[in-house]
Amino acid sequence: MAQMTNNEIYAFLTKGTMTAKISTASRIGKPHVAPVWFVVDWDLSQPGTDLEITFTTYSKSVKAKQLISNPQVCLCVDDQTPPYSFIIINGNVDIDRSPNEEELLRYTTRIAERYMGTEKAERYGKRNAVPGELIVRVRPTKIIAQKNVSD
Amino acid sequence: MAQMTNNEIYAFLTKGTMTAKISTASRIGKPHVAPVWFVVDWDLSQPGTDLEITFTTYSKSVKAKQLISNPQVCLCVDDQTPPYSFIIINGNVDIDRSPNEEELLRYTTRIAERYMGTEKAERYGKRNAVPGELIVRVRPTKIIAQKNVSD
Repeated sequence: MAQMTNNEIYAFLTKGTMTAKISTASRIGKPHVAPVWFVVDWDLSQPGTDLEITFTTYSKSVKAKQLISNPQVCLCVDDQTPPYSFIIINGNVDIDRSPNEEELLRYTTRIAERYMGTEKAERYGKRNAVPGELIVRVRPTKIIAQKNVSD
Repeated sequence: MAQMTNNEIYAFLTKGTMTAKISTASRIGKPHVAPVWFVVDWDLSQPGTDLEITFTTYSKSVKAKQLISNPQVCLCVDDQTPPYSFIIINGNVDIDRSPNEEELLRYTTRIAERYMGTEKAERYGKRNAVPGELIVRVRPTKIIAQKNVSD
């Protein structure tokens, strides 16, 4: 087992179609976790730039409701094949509850491109840019990133 | 998107080296999520037999500490490639805090066999059957199982 460098963290989070398992909790401690499609913004060439993870979710989902009442998040991205690697990020979220239509479509299209491919990006982007969809940005406070866990 | 049958749920949870992302929370709502290796017991030929998910964890881990003070869990197992499928299980946990040595070794070996293969099972089983390791059994209260999400 070894720790990932920042470059390895960025590469891991943006690799293929890895989903983030978003863990939230109610204020009285009821846990929830669900997979989401996400994109990463992190300019490693600019010192001090923070990693930002963005996803969209429908306002009536459990995660949206829990995040609105309790904007703390913990998320996990993992490679579930040997030698196994994972990243766990604790953070707070900023929720845009009435996003600008163009900005929402820009995110849903960018996310669809990652997960469905360039050809289907426009169609899936439109399908997901519906009224009630929120933009959620994770601001990390702690990152644990371990590679080759079973080595 | 379609719901999985019980046979599909069992097949999905036991396929290859899928990890479970175990979400826990403190009593004041601090969420946490981490990947674990697990095994499934579910005798579908016996009507009324409940699905049981078992994993082991070290007593000083965040998940162990949160589960001891708040034995609620939500876990996610997902296929992060198109057409994307996932299972989310809410439940309560039974924690064996001072497991019988033989029983602990039996679980760690069975789990190691799944994730590291038959040849390495004994070695990894022993490596993980250490004092302080707890056996955690998830008793599901709700199962959401969706296949082919992007279809």
